[in-house]
Amino acid sequence: MVGRAIHSITKEDIDAIVHFIRVVVKETGSKGLVIGASGGLDSAVTTKLCADAIGAENVLNVFMPSAVTPPGDHVLTKDMSKLWGTRYKVIDVQPAIDMFIGMFSSSAAALLEKGNASARCRMMVLYNRAKKLNYLVAGTMNKSEYMMGYFTKFGDGAADLFPIIGLYKTQVWQMAEMIGVPKEVIEKVPTAGLWDGQTDEEEMGITYHDLDIVLNGIILGLSESEIAEDAKVRTSKVLEIKGIVEGMEHKRSAPYRPNIAFNDP
Amino acid sequence: MVGRAIHSITKEDIDAIVHFIRVVVKETGSKGLVIGASGGLDSAVTTKLCADAIGAENVLNVFMPSAVTPPGDHVLTKDMSKLWGTRYKVIDVQPAIDMFIGMFSSSAAALLEKGNASARCRMMVLYNRAKKLNYLVAGTMNKSEYMMGYFTKFGDGAADLFPIIGLYKTQVWQMAEMIGVPKEVIEKVPTAGLWDGQTDEEEMGITYHDLDIVLNGIILGLSESEIAEDAKVRTSKVLEIKGIVEGMEHKRSAPYRPNIAFNDP
Repeated sequence: MVGRAIHSITKEDIDAIVHFIRVVVKETGSKGLVIGASGGLDSAVTTKLCADAIGAENVLNVFMPSAVTPPGDHVLTKDMSKLWGTRYKVIDVQPAIDMFIGMFSSSAAALLEKGNASARCRMMVLYNRAKKLNYLVAGTMNKSEYMMGYFTKFGDGAADLFPIIGLYKTQVWQMAEMIGVPKEVIEKVPTAGLWDGQTDEEEMGITYHDLDIVLNGIILGLSESEIAEDAKVRTSKVLEIKGIVEGMEHKRSAPYRPNIAFNDP
Repeated sequence: MVGRAIHSITKEDIDAIVHFIRVVVKETGSKGLVIGASGGLDSAVTTKLCADAIGAENVLNVFMPSAVTPPGDHVLTKDMSKLWGTRYKVIDVQPAIDMFIGMFSSSAAALLEKGNASARCRMMVLYNRAKKLNYLVAGTMNKSEYMMGYFTKFGDGAADLFPIIGLYKTQVWQMAEMIGVPKEVIEKVPTAGLWDGQTDEEEMGITYHDLDIVLNGIILGLSESEIAEDAKVRTSKVLEIKGIVEGMEHKRSAPYRPNIAFNDP
């Protein structure tokens, strides 16, 4: 297993991301960063890294609750904002979600449909805010979600920069400990918050710990049996995950364009 | 000027795009295509090409009027749908736009703000429909708009495929004549339809005819004075267009990601 274990986060990794954020903001001539704050791990880590990079006063957290948002998340996001000094705003997106579900004429809207609408309404709020302030939108996607296609295209999958997209969820946890994310946020059960009671691990049928080992094995080009051994899961689970990663390729790739353009800008 | 004039559309160009559309639908295992129909040139040409590629019965046009949509556009889109045999649906997006403008707490929402909200509400409707039907969203962006950044990121700039993105607006007009787009659509004054009375050419301060020559000159790497000569516009106008094309690079490029990921899927 030597050489194929997941990289442990170091102080240098944190510095590299902080530097990256600073450079992007500077080179685009932006005045700050907007981040959707959920009370979860990814937005907490992203917020702290952004605050360290450009100063907390130039970071705006927007908490956008819907009907399925646990009430405690408001307090969590607000407390973190106070702790780090970021600016903070609450915008209820439920009326907009309801409006769309009505427009979609879904008598019984599927959970996924509501989830996608929620994520896109939040994108609209963040981009409106960013445009007004000449800020960029910092996305909170991590590498595990990205590979699994566990995001809404043009929803939470839409941002100007993705500071932690190179980190597996387990690495985000490591980083969270190192940069002082509150314990209760680190210990929360991960959920995309798209419907009541949802948890990521239950939905995917695997823990993030095991998932990340499988994903890393896929990237390293290991055989299914090697990956199954490392992650201590069945080979069928490895094949299932591999199928998802490949099947979600369309969510990660650029739109299709015909090959008839003569030259491109 | 020989060799640097804009390519004239041929029957082969049309066949190439039709083939491209057919291949994308087939290879993604999709059942059809959704296209936002506005009554304008780009969505008309895109619709006809898609109908020729996969059969009109597998093409769904969605007309999404807002308060600033001219009433005649409804008839235009409906007539084209009848003419070509595509399926047709009307969804009023004004209530959703109003809802967002209220949420944005803009006592006097800027025109651009409303325009961006309109484009993104339409994206949400198209993607909801596509997801339900296992269709792809075909975007209607052309090369002139793309280079000028004349679109809303995650609004009309969001689609799964862009059939006419390789064509300048003037080439889209040529193609429209060749594939039988109704005369009244071809003769309409181009507008993004984002606010009342808006016209593209007035907003950009140049006709599409001249603009396309300038854009083509930029792509060919001609000098400013050569471009100004070809387009018969002042050098200052060429410089202005060049500045816009470069300044809008961020709307065409992928999100920024730190360079610390170890490997990518």
